[in-house]
Amino acid sequence: MNKSDGMNYAPKGKPNPVVAPGEFQFAAIGLDHGHVYGMCNGLIEAGGELVYVYDPDPEKVGRFLQQYPQVQAALSEAEIFADDRIQLVASANITSERCALGLRVMRAGKDYFVDKAPLTTLEQLEDAKRVAAETGRKYMVYYGERLHCEGALFAGQLIEQGAIGRVVQVMGWGPHRVNAPSRPEWFFQREKYGGILCDIGSHQIEQFLTYTGAKDATVVQSRIANYHHKQYPELEDYGDVMLTGDNGAAAYFRVDWLTPDGLSTWGDGRTLILGTDGYIEVRKYLDLARHPEGDQVYMANQEGEYHFSVKGQVGYPFFGQLILDCMNRTESAMTQEHAFKVAELSVLSQNLAIRME
Amino acid sequence: MNKSDGMNYAPKGKPNPVVAPGEFQFAAIGLDHGHVYGMCNGLIEAGGELVYVYDPDPEKVGRFLQQYPQVQAALSEAEIFADDRIQLVASANITSERCALGLRVMRAGKDYFVDKAPLTTLEQLEDAKRVAAETGRKYMVYYGERLHCEGALFAGQLIEQGAIGRVVQVMGWGPHRVNAPSRPEWFFQREKYGGILCDIGSHQIEQFLTYTGAKDATVVQSRIANYHHKQYPELEDYGDVMLTGDNGAAAYFRVDWLTPDGLSTWGDGRTLILGTDGYIEVRKYLDLARHPEGDQVYMANQEGEYHFSVKGQVGYPFFGQLILDCMNRTESAMTQEHAFKVAELSVLSQNLAIRME
Repeated sequence: MNKSDGMNYAPKGKPNPVVAPGEFQFAAIGLDHGHVYGMCNGLIEAGGELVYVYDPDPEKVGRFLQQYPQVQAALSEAEIFADDRIQLVASANITSERCALGLRVMRAGKDYFVDKAPLTTLEQLEDAKRVAAETGRKYMVYYGERLHCEGALFAGQLIEQGAIGRVVQVMGWGPHRVNAPSRPEWFFQREKYGGILCDIGSHQIEQFLTYTGAKDATVVQSRIANYHHKQYPELEDYGDVMLTGDNGAAAYFRVDWLTPDGLSTWGDGRTLILGTDGYIEVRKYLDLARHPEGDQVYMANQEGEYHFSVKGQVGYPFFGQLILDCMNRTESAMTQEHAFKVAELSVLSQNLAIRME
Repeated sequence: MNKSDGMNYAPKGKPNPVVAPGEFQFAAIGLDHGHVYGMCNGLIEAGGELVYVYDPDPEKVGRFLQQYPQVQAALSEAEIFADDRIQLVASANITSERCALGLRVMRAGKDYFVDKAPLTTLEQLEDAKRVAAETGRKYMVYYGERLHCEGALFAGQLIEQGAIGRVVQVMGWGPHRVNAPSRPEWFFQREKYGGILCDIGSHQIEQFLTYTGAKDATVVQSRIANYHHKQYPELEDYGDVMLTGDNGAAAYFRVDWLTPDGLSTWGDGRTLILGTDGYIEVRKYLDLARHPEGDQVYMANQEGEYHFSVKGQVGYPFFGQLILDCMNRTESAMTQEHAFKVAELSVLSQNLAIRME
């Protein structure tokens, strides 16, 4: 039985460089969440050169260097900030500290690429927006449940092709295994991880805006609960949200930390996309009791029923687009407005949530 | 391609009589929805004897008699009401008229078994409650998406066995094919069908209360839309609802009339039941792009992943229990309180809904 918990979920794709060796150099600062490995893998596969790593914890740095032996351990953030070769800093530090690091990175003249959730309060959001505008730097976010999931990307392609008509609803389930002993202390501290809707809910909001094309949305209702982990009073193991997009499309998602031990992966994440002419279901990380491999996409539309198994078929174009965006000051991977809007709606969902037991 | 629309979805089970021939006699009044066939099938398989049919439309009666040639066409409701042998009247008349018929049936000293939704307004609910109490008769409801679905019943058995711990959320999708040309005029008249949440949403609320054991719930938020059928201005082709149970459990469901033509059945109805120790997914009417047969139940819990294909394995015990309840004045099939509570929450969901476009 695979007891993985998603903390170390770091997909690897095929090398698909968009730049020549050495043309795009970046650093990693803040290794508190394993997502940093997925972020670095994606950038390296797209031709980026990972030059430095820094974290105050030498043990985390040591583990990181085992994975990336070519990288230099910096002695401080400042050392990295001072190196003009470094164009971007990737980070998966503690969620509540991500914005503060981002401000320092942008003020050092570098683009920032941060794990979701990119921030935990509306005040941080205002700071991030202001400094991004002042410096002209990017504050990009690793919404991995779409950007690093071929099934999710393929669903986006189907929608773009008009396979299901106008998208009117996106429904997501984001269950995760808690695997409490593997988690650091901050994972259970509400102020640090930001609440379940801000944290893993942000993936869902990102997918809703992307698939429906909404530029903004209203948080219609949100709820949180700690149903089954009373020993961690600040953990929220359940959350759900209804949003309505500015284009009239509906969203609902549920996130939880209730994946049972018997599941063969860390979570049966799914997205169901309802259109006026059909619907798509993405079974992201497995096909429950059918197949241990994820990226299984199901569709019904006016023509018929379809099953697409797309692992290895789509790739992860986001990372190459991000590198080119940084070099060319474009926004093809993700707009800054989109990244910040997701963060805003995630924090709002969290702030407005009513509590159940 | 099967262009069925669910209007004629009338499951047949195995004969499993709970009474001797002639011991329980019933009539059908009001044939406006094809569900009446499923209701009669269920009662007949459980040993009930269908004696009379009445509907003001001779064409509907003619079609009914083709299916049940042993039945006598009554000339009026009064003829049926006057026959003391008749213990129960089954009806699937126009939704907004179901309560008025029920009052007449109960005042005639007979139990009432009506298609969902059993009523469309809170005033009707008060009448139904009052007359049920005054007469001591039953006002039972055919919530067919659980009662006539072996996958849904099997999920209930798994929950009772404790397979997934405490149920903390029930999520349902109730998509239906609209197949507009096949629908009667009243289907498109809001006052008559009662709105999408009152109508097909009632199934979902019934399942939520059943699976979680909640006795009551709060409608936290509900929404409706007509996304794709503007030519029918009173049709609502989309609705969704969040409820919170009096036991703290959460519900969300979506219902719609957006099933695409390419789907091999009338709707990919599903229920996802999240517990503290696992979860269950019921694929009720097909296993999309996998198998045309429904009643496919998937589960993951602390022990492993499971797939159960249960068509023909569970039966439909509700109907025999209902007959015995009528004869013994018990409530083993469904309590009156439950039937009315579902109706109340369905109407409230509808009344409180905000509209999207």
